[in-house]
Amino acid sequence: MSDKKAVVLYSGGLDSTTCLAIAREAGFTPYAMSFAYGQRHAIELDKACAYAPRQKVAEHQVVTIDLRKIGGSALTAAIAVPKDGNFDAGIPVTYVPARNTIFLSFALGWAEALGAFDIFIGVNALDYSGYPDCRPEYIDAFEKLANLATAAGVDGRGVYRIHAPLLHLSKADIVRRGLALGVDYGLTHSCYDPTPAGLACGRCDSCRLRLKGFAEAGTVDPLPYA
Amino acid sequence: MSDKKAVVLYSGGLDSTTCLAIAREAGFTPYAMSFAYGQRHAIELDKACAYAPRQKVAEHQVVTIDLRKIGGSALTAAIAVPKDGNFDAGIPVTYVPARNTIFLSFALGWAEALGAFDIFIGVNALDYSGYPDCRPEYIDAFEKLANLATAAGVDGRGVYRIHAPLLHLSKADIVRRGLALGVDYGLTHSCYDPTPAGLACGRCDSCRLRLKGFAEAGTVDPLPYA
Repeated sequence: MSDKKAVVLYSGGLDSTTCLAIAREAGFTPYAMSFAYGQRHAIELDKACAYAPRQKVAEHQVVTIDLRKIGGSALTAAIAVPKDGNFDAGIPVTYVPARNTIFLSFALGWAEALGAFDIFIGVNALDYSGYPDCRPEYIDAFEKLANLATAAGVDGRGVYRIHAPLLHLSKADIVRRGLALGVDYGLTHSCYDPTPAGLACGRCDSCRLRLKGFAEAGTVDPLPYA
Repeated sequence: MSDKKAVVLYSGGLDSTTCLAIAREAGFTPYAMSFAYGQRHAIELDKACAYAPRQKVAEHQVVTIDLRKIGGSALTAAIAVPKDGNFDAGIPVTYVPARNTIFLSFALGWAEALGAFDIFIGVNALDYSGYPDCRPEYIDAFEKLANLATAAGVDGRGVYRIHAPLLHLSKADIVRRGLALGVDYGLTHSCYDPTPAGLACGRCDSCRLRLKGFAEAGTVDPLPYA
């Protein structure tokens, strides 16, 4: 394995799994970090844990935090996940307050303890759901913060970089890129509101963006849908 | 109570308890947030929980996260807490990687869910232990991030402010300010390495800064020491 370590935020979904493959392709040894945060679609974690060992990660850490106590989101509170909605209707109720900031903060802490200076996050600003913490200016601001927040950033041991390689890719581009890197999308999970048996609903924003991506990439999503 | 809500990071120590009193004095209704993060000085949490209800907080939330998994600090890993050390010897081993970034991220999420735009943190840049995430430029960077990270910051509902009212105060100033606001320091806890019975050691950086503060304020710390 490379001695260039990188912490990769890894939910088990289409974007973060592709991001992990890109980090490895770029020569980094990936340290994957997932979160059990009280999400209603906890099946994504099972998928993440099952697929991670097959992706040559040096370590896969699942951090337990309970964002249900904070509330304010359809993904963690008793708010219905919207189906068949309008993508242009502003920031959706599936937005989780400060989620990416919390995830990146943990990744930063782990990176510093590991002696890593590279953090990968699979956000993208095209074909996205309108989340504020998926925009380039947000990623830039976190990178600046990381270099002020840490002992390693301050004492000159290195410079933290937040890599968001999917930022300007469409979902179709992401699918193409992942397939080229050998990602098995049948082992990923994207649905916000799966059936009790774990099938993707096909109707939430996340499913529809995913299906659109596969269609535009001219290929078929290997996942079964409800 | 005021309808100006503020989330206050509250460890139960001297600084954060004074910060909470300052937030209330400034007209905010405090929502106190503490963390069970695997710290070896977990007694501070017991103190925080016991004292919070007497400080007119609207709610006191204790978030459980396990920073021991991340490691890299004497406060969470099997590294000895230094005693009687030199304050000028750089960033000490009690620094916890990304701790304040993680804490502020949770505070931001809670603030957004509550509809609050004010977050208080009791960091101070004088008489401190050399932690990078206690500096003014760090606080400024987090404030910028907060306004990019959130739905409420982006859609014009408000502007997040990170208040660090202790930033430029000495420990003596903090003690004077807290006493003037009625803080009962006998109900707080600062020691990094208390005895099994919960007595402060008097020798770790945190104890020595605290004792120096009381001495310079011309008063006596009401806490018993080992």
